[in-house]
Amino acid sequence: MKLLRYGPPGEEKPGLLDTDGNLRDLSGHVTDIAGDVLLPDGLARLKALDVTSLPRVEGNPRLGPCVGGARKFICIGLNYSDHAAETGAAIPPEPIVFMKATSAIVGPNDAIEIPRNALKTDWEVELGVVIGKTAKYVSESDAMDHVAGYCVINDVSERAFQAERQGQWTKGKSADTFGPTGPWLVTSDQVHNPQALPMWLEVNGHRYQNGNTATMIYGVRYLVAYLSQFMSLQPGDIISTGTPPGVGLGQKPPVYLKPGDVVTLGIEGLGQQRQNVLQG
Amino acid sequence: MKLLRYGPPGEEKPGLLDTDGNLRDLSGHVTDIAGDVLLPDGLARLKALDVTSLPRVEGNPRLGPCVGGARKFICIGLNYSDHAAETGAAIPPEPIVFMKATSAIVGPNDAIEIPRNALKTDWEVELGVVIGKTAKYVSESDAMDHVAGYCVINDVSERAFQAERQGQWTKGKSADTFGPTGPWLVTSDQVHNPQALPMWLEVNGHRYQNGNTATMIYGVRYLVAYLSQFMSLQPGDIISTGTPPGVGLGQKPPVYLKPGDVVTLGIEGLGQQRQNVLQG
Repeated sequence: MKLLRYGPPGEEKPGLLDTDGNLRDLSGHVTDIAGDVLLPDGLARLKALDVTSLPRVEGNPRLGPCVGGARKFICIGLNYSDHAAETGAAIPPEPIVFMKATSAIVGPNDAIEIPRNALKTDWEVELGVVIGKTAKYVSESDAMDHVAGYCVINDVSERAFQAERQGQWTKGKSADTFGPTGPWLVTSDQVHNPQALPMWLEVNGHRYQNGNTATMIYGVRYLVAYLSQFMSLQPGDIISTGTPPGVGLGQKPPVYLKPGDVVTLGIEGLGQQRQNVLQG
Repeated sequence: MKLLRYGPPGEEKPGLLDTDGNLRDLSGHVTDIAGDVLLPDGLARLKALDVTSLPRVEGNPRLGPCVGGARKFICIGLNYSDHAAETGAAIPPEPIVFMKATSAIVGPNDAIEIPRNALKTDWEVELGVVIGKTAKYVSESDAMDHVAGYCVINDVSERAFQAERQGQWTKGKSADTFGPTGPWLVTSDQVHNPQALPMWLEVNGHRYQNGNTATMIYGVRYLVAYLSQFMSLQPGDIISTGTPPGVGLGQKPPVYLKPGDVVTLGIEGLGQQRQNVLQG
């Protein structure tokens, strides 16, 4: 299934995209694409619905983030060997884990606001993993049972805030609009191999990132098991798994976002995003 | 007001502690101590209630975390000059900001679980600040209008996970039970000066921390304004403002928590916590 949320910010309704590309309303069956709806039983109930019986949504409504009410937005740093190389960092011997504020989450086509006093606002196309079942001390062999599905994330990053303003990365990762998420939560039964997904990002039509999840250092299975040793993961938690080469920081000279830019990005099978860049 | 939440984990009801020390039920007036209830209007409505008309809660129920549904659990590192000294770190020229997982939040007297494979689980008594009104790009002069109140937090920390397992601190700060919060949310009208609060922490009756919020490097007013430049703060978000000297890491030789230990801590006017330490 391609699950989604549509409508104005904060008032999104649950929906899905049918195989003909029509948006269908799920609000007669669930209140949100969030929390317990993402449990294996909850997804099984949605899958059992007759899609053609669901009301079609007319027009072209805004899409919200494809998951509602996420309580954690966990990110993995330097998780593509070639991205680590472009930033001049060594390949980390264990995953680097940091958090984005959940208040950074927006819809896939909402504007990116450059924060006040920002100097180096950058892009990162990433594979998002959405947890479907609580994971605590899970093994790699069980890890995938805890994944509800996958989505596209732009891990928007202010490099000056991240690296030049003392300490931890979260400061450069958490501004409002820094987490476009969606368009769809594609359930894991439809993603045969999350480690073989082409992904790309363009700014104003120029392709900067052109990668594949095949070059991740730590794959989804490993990450879910690893993170669950340090904290429990709950339904609706989002893990953003790192970015391939081609971020602005890695250009020679570096290139950063400016008001008026248009960012487009996508991952094969998971859909595309499009963001206008504004001054916040 | 001393607002609180009581009952089994995940089923807490809202309540308050009256001036005679009686627990009173607020569930006839609000569904939770969370979100919009913490807005200035919401708190004013609670303050206008005739406390003697509220049902008294009999017995001695468990207290939950004093704030429900927190979406962000933001922490400040090395924010007491003498604590920075004991850890061998320089005084940071700007606040160090990191996140704890919100899934770490538990009640003030719930057990602390030492995570599997933990080596150096440590304590940190901290002043918690609870946001009452959305803050985005606020000035220092306006910052205190965005604070609903204060509480005690134990920022439990696994030093080996934090410092010896690569990268960012969040890995050592986010285990389940690593965020005892409460007993009460003391509204800001009852805390005349948040920068003059004695605070302490004992393990098995031995006093390790004996500090005062007067020695914070960056005070509450500054922190709220500062953080709001990097991310928006919403009602119910928690800021844990750093710890004074006396953590286990700072002892010579270092002392860490072990199963069977009892941790007690408190801040003047904000109440006390008591945690049994278990192996998770």
